[in-house]
Amino acid sequence: MDAMKDLIQRYQHKRISLVEAGVTRHRSIFNGLKALAEGQRDAQLSRPEVVIIHDAVRPFVEEDILLKVVTAAKEHGAAGAVRPLVSTVISPDADGCLDHSLERARHRASEMPQAFLFDVIYEAYQQCSDYDLEFGTECLQLALKYCHIKAKLVEGSPDLWKVTYKRDLYAAESIIKERISEQIHIVMDTKEDEEHIGHHFEEMLKNELNHVKVTSGSLCHPGRDLQQIILEQCYNFICVNVKTSEFEETQKLLDVLTESNISILYPVVVISVHFLDHKSVPIGQKMENLMQIREFAKEVKKRNILLCGLLIYCPQEKQKLQDSLRRGAIIIATLIKERNSGLIGQLLVA
Amino acid sequence: MDAMKDLIQRYQHKRISLVEAGVTRHRSIFNGLKALAEGQRDAQLSRPEVVIIHDAVRPFVEEDILLKVVTAAKEHGAAGAVRPLVSTVISPDADGCLDHSLERARHRASEMPQAFLFDVIYEAYQQCSDYDLEFGTECLQLALKYCHIKAKLVEGSPDLWKVTYKRDLYAAESIIKERISEQIHIVMDTKEDEEHIGHHFEEMLKNELNHVKVTSGSLCHPGRDLQQIILEQCYNFICVNVKTSEFEETQKLLDVLTESNISILYPVVVISVHFLDHKSVPIGQKMENLMQIREFAKEVKKRNILLCGLLIYCPQEKQKLQDSLRRGAIIIATLIKERNSGLIGQLLVA
Repeated sequence: MDAMKDLIQRYQHKRISLVEAGVTRHRSIFNGLKALAEGQRDAQLSRPEVVIIHDAVRPFVEEDILLKVVTAAKEHGAAGAVRPLVSTVISPDADGCLDHSLERARHRASEMPQAFLFDVIYEAYQQCSDYDLEFGTECLQLALKYCHIKAKLVEGSPDLWKVTYKRDLYAAESIIKERISEQIHIVMDTKEDEEHIGHHFEEMLKNELNHVKVTSGSLCHPGRDLQQIILEQCYNFICVNVKTSEFEETQKLLDVLTESNISILYPVVVISVHFLDHKSVPIGQKMENLMQIREFAKEVKKRNILLCGLLIYCPQEKQKLQDSLRRGAIIIATLIKERNSGLIGQLLVA
Repeated sequence: MDAMKDLIQRYQHKRISLVEAGVTRHRSIFNGLKALAEGQRDAQLSRPEVVIIHDAVRPFVEEDILLKVVTAAKEHGAAGAVRPLVSTVISPDADGCLDHSLERARHRASEMPQAFLFDVIYEAYQQCSDYDLEFGTECLQLALKYCHIKAKLVEGSPDLWKVTYKRDLYAAESIIKERISEQIHIVMDTKEDEEHIGHHFEEMLKNELNHVKVTSGSLCHPGRDLQQIILEQCYNFICVNVKTSEFEETQKLLDVLTESNISILYPVVVISVHFLDHKSVPIGQKMENLMQIREFAKEVKKRNILLCGLLIYCPQEKQKLQDSLRRGAIIIATLIKERNSGLIGQLLVA
């Protein structure tokens, strides 16, 4: 209970009431229904028309399927998401040999979410036997058995699968990474009309990262486009340091991000880009300065912001310079796609 | 057929005979059985005692489960791998509403591999109806229906799951990456008794990468320990360049790996490690030299060898030096775990 309370507070949820679980799935659900029926508890709960039941192990539930099961429950009394079977289902006999197999096309896997008219599912649970509460797994079956309600079955998306094995954690992580890698915002400290390598790099990024939405702006007018981008839930920022000394611009960006709290849900990747050309301060000195990124990174890591540095080596020859910029863009694409914590705080050279 | 022939040739398989598939699963299997029964075809095929049927979409089959199903098939006539059901299975009525649900604990998901006495499964397929061949999915069911053989059900591992959705590709990729990241071999061009930073780095690697098997050796006696390591299917190599000029040692290592053909099945990661201290040639010059790694990387990429460079900056102060070495070890751990193609050919600075 304490762990859940911490989570609710941390993510600032306002409309959650916690109810203690039972020792089996059905007993937990019954506890939740009783809390709604009784309606007291911090005055937030009241008996609803429709109740949705969902599993935390299916974290990728979309609003669309919630709407569908609720609508169907209003009409039919009960409804649940289903998926086609991936493997054939068989029934073993007492000796562990095949008794019979089921025709795959005539069966479905029952998934979540499910929705019920409150009166239907509450009535069903009140009539449940102890055997049901101990060994049952299927709420739709209870509505059928005790209230004679035939639940409407609604086709769900593959992402409703149950995170069960270690491999499912890999899959879930990849799905999240893919979702939060869809947009990148570039901030740069030059004026738009200036002819500067930073703008060439911006062009290069837009060309190379053509599968993601790339936006750009400056930090001169904070509170305008950057705030908008944060509201759109952009989790990837490139800070191109051109004029200012080393990390001044990056520091400004980090301040805005920290204040915004955007990194509370998913990690935000920030890549601080620097250029090294023949006009730079002595290269050894430049490297020493850039190594400071490790200290910044350590600090913002506590706020779930993943900072790395990218030093782009700029030869005078135009073709070689283009190659450097392209390599920089590829490194950025990789960092944003993979979000490797092992590379956080590191300086990469393109 | 041509694509499969290419694969067989590329991976130098010697004991595979190809048979053309049918339009459904059962027709394909039947074609395979007929080829075995007829026994001609490049003289490799003969009627076996036991036949194993497996799906290519279950790539993580272990020898252990093959042995179990074959042994059980010899005793019972048929056997197949099964897994517990993750979701409850239900049966819809004609209107898409719940007709009934199955008790989850009394059913199993039928997976592969399956094994049969050849005479049993061939007899079953010969008696199959067209309906079976078109719409059936379960070989165990055919053995039951036509030969009255009750297949033995053998508990399989979770890794036998069917790669079906996009998320399953993520999971499969992660499983492969995990398997080929279990061992790292370090080669170094100094003598063991020498007091050199390379040895400090080796120590650091062994401490930081304590979840992987770290071995080390030199290239002075090629054909001995390195060949042994390659035979053990090690897919990760660190080349610490101490004495020789830039890439001489790395080049030697790449030559041995290229000749060995180890990268034919999975990509091999090679990380070329260099040190930069106050005694080094001018830092600009050193960087220019190290940038050559991109050319090497491009070349060996064709052979499925992923080469990256790591430049470790070595301050004089002992504590700072330790920090640099530790960061280098963390970068290496990340590169080997993630195998990011975006970082191949790049130079990373620790």
